[in-house]
Amino acid sequence: MSGNIYIGVDMGGTAIKVGICDESGKLLHTYEGATGTEFGSDEVLDRMAKYVRKIVDDSPFEWDQVAGIGAGIAGFLDIPQGFVKLSANLGWRNVPVKQILEQKLGKPVTIDNDANVAALGEAWSGAGAGIPNVVCYTLGTGVGGGIIINGKIYQGFNGMAGELGHLQIVPDLEAIGCGCGQSGCLETVSSATGIIRMANDAVERGDKTTLSLVSEPITAKHVFDEARSGDEVSMRIVNRAAYYLGRSMAMLAVIVNPQRFILGGGVSKAGEILFQPIRENFKKYAPEAAQEGVEIVPAVLGNDAGVVGAAGLNLH
Amino acid sequence: MSGNIYIGVDMGGTAIKVGICDESGKLLHTYEGATGTEFGSDEVLDRMAKYVRKIVDDSPFEWDQVAGIGAGIAGFLDIPQGFVKLSANLGWRNVPVKQILEQKLGKPVTIDNDANVAALGEAWSGAGAGIPNVVCYTLGTGVGGGIIINGKIYQGFNGMAGELGHLQIVPDLEAIGCGCGQSGCLETVSSATGIIRMANDAVERGDKTTLSLVSEPITAKHVFDEARSGDEVSMRIVNRAAYYLGRSMAMLAVIVNPQRFILGGGVSKAGEILFQPIRENFKKYAPEAAQEGVEIVPAVLGNDAGVVGAAGLNLH
Repeated sequence: MSGNIYIGVDMGGTAIKVGICDESGKLLHTYEGATGTEFGSDEVLDRMAKYVRKIVDDSPFEWDQVAGIGAGIAGFLDIPQGFVKLSANLGWRNVPVKQILEQKLGKPVTIDNDANVAALGEAWSGAGAGIPNVVCYTLGTGVGGGIIINGKIYQGFNGMAGELGHLQIVPDLEAIGCGCGQSGCLETVSSATGIIRMANDAVERGDKTTLSLVSEPITAKHVFDEARSGDEVSMRIVNRAAYYLGRSMAMLAVIVNPQRFILGGGVSKAGEILFQPIRENFKKYAPEAAQEGVEIVPAVLGNDAGVVGAAGLNLH
Repeated sequence: MSGNIYIGVDMGGTAIKVGICDESGKLLHTYEGATGTEFGSDEVLDRMAKYVRKIVDDSPFEWDQVAGIGAGIAGFLDIPQGFVKLSANLGWRNVPVKQILEQKLGKPVTIDNDANVAALGEAWSGAGAGIPNVVCYTLGTGVGGGIIINGKIYQGFNGMAGELGHLQIVPDLEAIGCGCGQSGCLETVSSATGIIRMANDAVERGDKTTLSLVSEPITAKHVFDEARSGDEVSMRIVNRAAYYLGRSMAMLAVIVNPQRFILGGGVSKAGEILFQPIRENFKKYAPEAAQEGVEIVPAVLGNDAGVVGAAGLNLH
């Protein structure tokens, strides 16, 4: 078969997922193998290179068609150098990923952080396909963000652009501390962790809520389920998470003014009960001229966004 | 003389300022003539074309060397179409500026709003020269903003990117209405108008302040002068204006993450009494990783920023 192919790698703490994309961002083949984090970075990178060789060998494509390899990694990275400064879930410190992999594979290697890569995946061939400027939120344990300008990840001066989870949007009087050392960050209220915290607080202080009947540790899904069943406390928690997301988008509308906001990650699967109040608050707070034609939509690639976006790193 | 030249036009309500820049953004010649707003848009555009011809005729350059003409206009614009939807200070509605001027002058014409053009001027050959990503604030009657990414004005989907005056940054409980219809916008507290309002409020409610001894209508300069002389109420007003500017920069640091923030406009001339608390608040609220190497500096081109940036529209 002819034409270039692009390899994406999603480096998780337990599994390495590898995928082959064509030039349009279509995911053609995937392979998943154990990370082996416990054996250290040399072994992990050996495995990664092996999985990349394997997926191409097992496909109808030739190694010569591989235009480049991209990897999404959670942690603090020096992106231009392809260097991992610190990755908590891989247990890495100062690993020159790009240098090692380029030596092993003889192809250009590009790395980027997981939220940026997921954003690029959605922008390339997911919910933002064909739209040049999009802002993505990944609502999971934390709140990740990625800003795509003219189809490319926008990094900023220190690679800190699009760190939307650390927008200090909660007013001081209502703010609580964030893992980053600041307080009032968006992820303190709009991540799964934030939602679970608000739920546990409500149960512990004896609020009248059906959440107190949940027999296992409360998850964000419990809160959405109880809200859907009419529990007012749960609905308030959902509305609070949505309110700050909507207000953050109103702010982004006068800074980045994207055409589309895309919401992915586990929390976004809650659907309309979350999206509706987000849209209402965005509409209420964004200047009219900055919301005309602007859409707030769910991500569509699910867990594939990371591998697709990583593949796109060498094209975009 | 050889090489391309770039013409910039700053369209004011009373004067049209025209300038010639070289390829490095150096302003070589300027000419200023009356706008004649009272005679309507046809006459104004005739004059503008005449001033452009005149400045080139009077210079050592040939008309053939003119690579393009840019104009900065305050108002609502359709920038790609070069169309003025509404300009309050020119009294214009639906004027196809680009089309008319290209016909009159036979050269490419580009328009953009005044805050964006001032930002581009500073980024090209002012306080941001050589820096790819900068964010500019123009602190005047309102708060204007401009975001420069890779040396170009970043417009966003609706041309609303960088409308920093309408960041709703003041918490609801302390917010007052803004001309835009929202409340709590940055320009309600950090513009000259906002500073004057806070000063008049203080005097009217009988706060103990030397501002009550000012015999003429209070200006922002009075407030800075009294603050410098030790008046506590004036100092509080300055600190409030600076606080929200610093916090807005902390937000921008995790969205755009520019290398440099540039502050221009009349209010920025207050100097260190304003810049010091802005820097303190930025340092306090921005995540460390997003402030490393980031500077907050005054604009250097003064009133020339508009004409230089307008000239740059056809190069950037």
